[in-house]
Amino acid sequence: MKVVFHHSSDDAEMHARVVNNVANLLADETVDVEAVAVVVNGGGLGLLVGGTDHRELIESLQERNVLFKQCENTLARSDWEETDLLDGVEIVSSGVGELARLQSEGYAYIKP
Amino acid sequence: MKVVFHHSSDDAEMHARVVNNVANLLADETVDVEAVAVVVNGGGLGLLVGGTDHRELIESLQERNVLFKQCENTLARSDWEETDLLDGVEIVSSGVGELARLQSEGYAYIKP
Amino acid sequence: MKVVFHHSSDDAEMHARVVNNVANLLADETVDVEAVAVVVNGGGLGLLVGGTDHRELIESLQERNVLFKQCENTLARSDWEETDLLDGVEIVSSGVGELARLQSEGYAYIKP
Repeated sequence: MKVVFHHSSDDAEMHARVVNNVANLLADETVDVEAVAVVVNGGGLGLLVGGTDHRELIESLQERNVLFKQCENTLARSDWEETDLLDGVEIVSSGVGELARLQSEGYAYIKP
Repeated sequence: MKVVFHHSSDDAEMHARVVNNVANLLADETVDVEAVAVVVNGGGLGLLVGGTDHRELIESLQERNVLFKQCENTLARSDWEETDLLDGVEIVSSGVGELARLQSEGYAYIKP
Repeated sequence: MKVVFHHSSDDAEMHARVVNNVANLLADETVDVEAVAVVVNGGGLGLLVGGTDHRELIESLQERNVLFKQCENTLARSDWEETDLLDGVEIVSSGVGELARLQSEGYAYIKP
């Protein structure tokens, strides 16, 4: 199964929920997970910058092949730069375009 | 058509919206509904325990074959026990895994 | 690609986010967009009535073939009438039914 999580909230509780949701999916032995992506736009950006509370968990998820994808439109309108993003975060031309593309490739969509 | 509703909010208005959304779907004569599931994780749990404001509607939806599925991870971290859940609620090993599985089986996803 | 956006919030920031998300999708040259719909229920209705802050952008999106679809149940329970809706907004018998139908036709789902 392929799954894309969509994160667009600047709420600290939601940042935590998103990464915990991904970890829960990977820990679920009843599910055969082939690919996982997290697409971030809007307020979700705070999850993926240097000051995030979740760097360790994100890095351990990346080691398990979870892809983190940041919307370029959001980044351009923010006070952050590409260099503020955690290592390995991919910039996509739009979060919504990436969400559409991944679903067209068979990814299930989850909004935590 | 097969539809899965995802409920993860502890907001009382959202509890009401979810069950009303399901009822609206079943009442829509332009849609041929084959299967409906409600997958609950996070704060959504309050909808499915004994003290819920929506017991009657949930029971009537269950009689119409709507399946209510509670995330086991959420339950384990909560102050509630399995015995606090309404009759007929199924526990799934993870809400996110169930959401992925149902979408892979052709369910449409709706986050109320 | 075909995409349906689901809007159900009465938050003014969310009204803006929804229409900006649609505009961002259309502006994304890496995505081949075949059809876009915006399905509105619950508090989202405020986006589609005469007093909306986003009339101009909505009209320009309609000119680019974005379809705006308003849930009839929501409208019936509101203080607005069909005649309060912006020109070109289609009324659907239920927002949730329309979301299910469009996904069964291959639309990707995005909740902004």
